[in-house]
Amino acid sequence: MVKLENINNIFLSDSVINLDHGDPTAYEEYWRKIGDRCTVTIRGCDLMSYFSDVNSMCWFLEPELAEAIKELHDAVGNAATEDRYIVVGTGSTQLCQAAVHALSSLAGTQPVSVVAAAPYYSTYVEETTYVRSGMYKWEGDAWDFDKKGPYIELVTSPNNPDGTIRETVVNRPDEDEGKVINDFAYYWPHYTPITRRQDHDIMLFTFSKITGHAGSRIGWALVKDKEVAKKMVEYIIVNSIGVSKESQIRTAKILNVLKETCKSETENFFKYGHEMMKNRWEKLRGVVKESNVFCLPKYPEAYCNFFGKTLGSYPAFAWLGTKEETDLVNELRRHKVMSRAGERCGSDKKRVRVSMLSREDVFNVFLERLANMKLIKSIDL
Amino acid sequence: MVKLENINNIFLSDSVINLDHGDPTAYEEYWRKIGDRCTVTIRGCDLMSYFSDVNSMCWFLEPELAEAIKELHDAVGNAATEDRYIVVGTGSTQLCQAAVHALSSLAGTQPVSVVAAAPYYSTYVEETTYVRSGMYKWEGDAWDFDKKGPYIELVTSPNNPDGTIRETVVNRPDEDEGKVINDFAYYWPHYTPITRRQDHDIMLFTFSKITGHAGSRIGWALVKDKEVAKKMVEYIIVNSIGVSKESQIRTAKILNVLKETCKSETENFFKYGHEMMKNRWEKLRGVVKESNVFCLPKYPEAYCNFFGKTLGSYPAFAWLGTKEETDLVNELRRHKVMSRAGERCGSDKKRVRVSMLSREDVFNVFLERLANMKLIKSIDL
Repeated sequence: MVKLENINNIFLSDSVINLDHGDPTAYEEYWRKIGDRCTVTIRGCDLMSYFSDVNSMCWFLEPELAEAIKELHDAVGNAATEDRYIVVGTGSTQLCQAAVHALSSLAGTQPVSVVAAAPYYSTYVEETTYVRSGMYKWEGDAWDFDKKGPYIELVTSPNNPDGTIRETVVNRPDEDEGKVINDFAYYWPHYTPITRRQDHDIMLFTFSKITGHAGSRIGWALVKDKEVAKKMVEYIIVNSIGVSKESQIRTAKILNVLKETCKSETENFFKYGHEMMKNRWEKLRGVVKESNVFCLPKYPEAYCNFFGKTLGSYPAFAWLGTKEETDLVNELRRHKVMSRAGERCGSDKKRVRVSMLSREDVFNVFLERLANMKLIKSIDL
Repeated sequence: MVKLENINNIFLSDSVINLDHGDPTAYEEYWRKIGDRCTVTIRGCDLMSYFSDVNSMCWFLEPELAEAIKELHDAVGNAATEDRYIVVGTGSTQLCQAAVHALSSLAGTQPVSVVAAAPYYSTYVEETTYVRSGMYKWEGDAWDFDKKGPYIELVTSPNNPDGTIRETVVNRPDEDEGKVINDFAYYWPHYTPITRRQDHDIMLFTFSKITGHAGSRIGWALVKDKEVAKKMVEYIIVNSIGVSKESQIRTAKILNVLKETCKSETENFFKYGHEMMKNRWEKLRGVVKESNVFCLPKYPEAYCNFFGKTLGSYPAFAWLGTKEETDLVNELRRHKVMSRAGERCGSDKKRVRVSMLSREDVFNVFLERLANMKLIKSIDL
């Protein structure tokens, strides 16, 4: 009898694998094992109102989610939550747009320039251009930015796509002119050492990339300034009249389990995630080393306050490069691997972004195909 | 011993009541009685991926929700679903913006004018102005619209705020120039007789106003044209990378129960809703009749295909007017009733929109205060 696993492998062996999106299905196995502790039950009469807390500025934020967010950050030590407003969003995607909108609406002159240092998260380009807003304007690579007037710099650290630790690069002396949105989607212990408790004006986080629950579409912002938080809330009200309550209470439950288990030896999600990512990166680096065709960034080790030891970085995406003069995204596509073109991230044809968070079988097929590409390239040369 | 109900009444007797928003908490009681049949249980490992159906154009739409939507429309007979694309959104709010965006991006010239016949849903103004898009421009009342070039007319029927049955009013001969978005949020049997199976190009529906589950933020569009549907999906991808899966599967479950019970004598939600709305409207008309100060629109009766008899309309909002030269929204506020100003809906100070979907105790306090206002006004006269 043919096992289901074998059928999957046979099926996979010939199909296109999509590593363009960062769909974080890698963690499903962990949540399957955790059992009923994360199960939520919602009755027909629950969560019906638009309002979660009429007295709160962010009245569509479930108080139990706010509490769970604060407690998790405290337990992990990756971000300051005191004296801050929490704004919940339909993923950090909606929040990033809310923050750009809020900062622009409070700026003296418009359109406000929006920049990010290349290589940057390609979606920032779409997010800041698709509605053709008169309030802000995507100005591309922060390294080349020399336009006068107010600007917003998007800083993703660890960076998507290349996994590096980032600071601002524009750094003009006039503080009123330049605002920063810090995207900390990947600043969690399974991806990178937690070296400090971040303490910036606007910090974005997303449930998807912590635990893998991308389908829930939950993100949050920690915002220092009241007016900015208020404008972000206004944006979300007009954009979608708040955020799914079902997703919020499920997120609260799962974040609570994360927090409760994060000191455990056997159930610690971050330890599980860290070991899986380390293992995948070692395998990938092995294939790349053998290839003579591909290259990957190297990351320095650092002391992680969460794990209490010196560790490497194992980003959610591999920023894969080639030493050949070739269009890498097309090369990979020829070998049935979908990836994100480096050009979309403000880089070049010789680089692509590949998700490291696929299911295990898909990841293994990717490694196999990459290893085979090496052989084909060698013949080509 | 003081009963909880009495405590609520004491508390309510002096507090501000908010009937500005259409928070549909009136239906909670029904869902409490329906019991476990609508309960959903979600395990930690469920619904993790961004993708609901990779082969579907709207890949973030849960197939069971698509099925439930089609079956409910078939059972109620209020809209055609065959040969249409279903696009799910974070409420119909996100979908309305997706549709305006889609139609504008496909128009020959931009900005495309956006209009709605006054009195209109005030949120349309905010939705089409807040990002200051260069693609479309809010041009106000469709009755006064005489600008050349492409336009989009938003038609809400039954109308929000005034409950009337609406058709397009611009009606230019050149079909390519004018596009229509039909908002059928309230075209359900508890609010209005179902006189025909609607069959328009873009039809919007929202879970909130059918069953009262506003907190779930689920809406859907039935779209004839493939390119329009595709552009709407693209908008939702950039805006929020899809829609909460938890809300989608809960909506599917509840819509299925709606469908299963909609022919029942004892459990029919629409019958329950219809009777409640009829009862509230009769009470409100009674108070208004006594007052000599206020007025309400009258609605014609019509044969309802769903209930199989001739019935009146009982809209989700009361479009309350006054015969006096007064600023009605302020008058009501003085009596601790928050309502939406007529001016925000493209009308005048003498009219306000009042939600008819509050909890029963709040509705009764509203009636009481309205009755007392009559007395005060009488003394004033």
